[in-house]
Amino acid sequence: MTATLYDLCGADRSLRFSPHCWRAKMALAHKGLAFTTVPTAFTEIAAIEDGRCRTVPVLNDNGVIVGDSFDIAIYLETAYAQRPALFGHAGLVAAARLMEGWVFNAIRPVLMAMMVKDIHDVLAPADQAYFRESREKRLGTSLEEAQTGLEANAEALAMALAPARRALGDHDWLGGAAPLYADYILFGSLFWLVAITGRLPLPGNDAVSDWFERCLDLHDGLARKARRAA
Amino acid sequence: MTATLYDLCGADRSLRFSPHCWRAKMALAHKGLAFTTVPTAFTEIAAIEDGRCRTVPVLNDNGVIVGDSFDIAIYLETAYAQRPALFGHAGLVAAARLMEGWVFNAIRPVLMAMMVKDIHDVLAPADQAYFRESREKRLGTSLEEAQTGLEANAEALAMALAPARRALGDHDWLGGAAPLYADYILFGSLFWLVAITGRLPLPGNDAVSDWFERCLDLHDGLARKARRAA
Repeated sequence: MTATLYDLCGADRSLRFSPHCWRAKMALAHKGLAFTTVPTAFTEIAAIEDGRCRTVPVLNDNGVIVGDSFDIAIYLETAYAQRPALFGHAGLVAAARLMEGWVFNAIRPVLMAMMVKDIHDVLAPADQAYFRESREKRLGTSLEEAQTGLEANAEALAMALAPARRALGDHDWLGGAAPLYADYILFGSLFWLVAITGRLPLPGNDAVSDWFERCLDLHDGLARKARRAA
Repeated sequence: MTATLYDLCGADRSLRFSPHCWRAKMALAHKGLAFTTVPTAFTEIAAIEDGRCRTVPVLNDNGVIVGDSFDIAIYLETAYAQRPALFGHAGLVAAARLMEGWVFNAIRPVLMAMMVKDIHDVLAPADQAYFRESREKRLGTSLEEAQTGLEANAEALAMALAPARRALGDHDWLGGAAPLYADYILFGSLFWLVAITGRLPLPGNDAVSDWFERCLDLHDGLARKARRAA
């Protein structure tokens, strides 16, 4: 029996863009686990697995239900300890938590300014209403005002990514010699942008761009196959 | 023979506040290495070790000269590989690099707003002139305008530290079960604030405050002994 992952989808249910779901999918693939995804709209989350989770991803691993992308990674690391490590050291769990917070504080706001209205536009009508209300409340402005655009924020994104560029100057992966969950945290968020807009607007010869391409190739090109053309 | 570390000092040459020098001192202590410090004013750096370095810390380890705090940590890890690890995993080197960039981007500007004029005020006259000219150029404003104060920026500091708070929610150290170089990166920057202002203005029961106190106790209270009262 394979694991099931509830995976956020757009009006086109084959469009899977959620950064947190991508973290979970890359983590499952990293462990070499077979899994199927269940396309799940925002407004369908309340109905899955007895409504015990308010966000996706949700993993059902043969009856073990785990929500939250970081919790899923920790669960996989423990339950499949003999498979390739997602962390491999308690310091790398702490570092991944720090990275999660850094992405949330420094990268996510730039990505929202790039595409929050575009995200809305790919959703099914019921999800659009939910998304507009919840995000406009959080942002304190309309989606139209909040989205200042991909090009307008390209320099801000490149600057915000400076810490990752620094790390990737010495190493091919944020995990060092090989990818670890740290890679999937940042990758998930940047793939979100690519899934929605078709582009990662970074300068050529950028260490982060090069690393992103390597991530697309991981696990038999799992993410590359899901990428839409620009 | 013990190692020598050139360590930034104020007009009071016993006042040692540089975040990068504290990273290096904690790293030396972590490796259990005996070392002496040489108080060095900004305007004295050009004269040390044949003027090959433009910043401190500079380590002279029995004739091996290493500048830059991160390079010193990497040197120590390699040269003293049999002593307690500062990294222990290539992924932790990458994570430390990312943390260095995060501190530079997210924490340092808040600390500068808290105390840049206060830093100036503890320097010797020749250093004051250098510091004012170089920092005002970098900041694009006067030191007096740039420093908006400790209390005025306390909430911004608490928010900027959210990623570290997240990491320290699950672990006693940013290095996980025990301190690693990652801890010394953030500690050095926060100790800079404490060395200059006497205070770390974070809310009570804050995971970062608790961790900071643990850092002060490390290595026979190396930093605690150097702390000035508020």
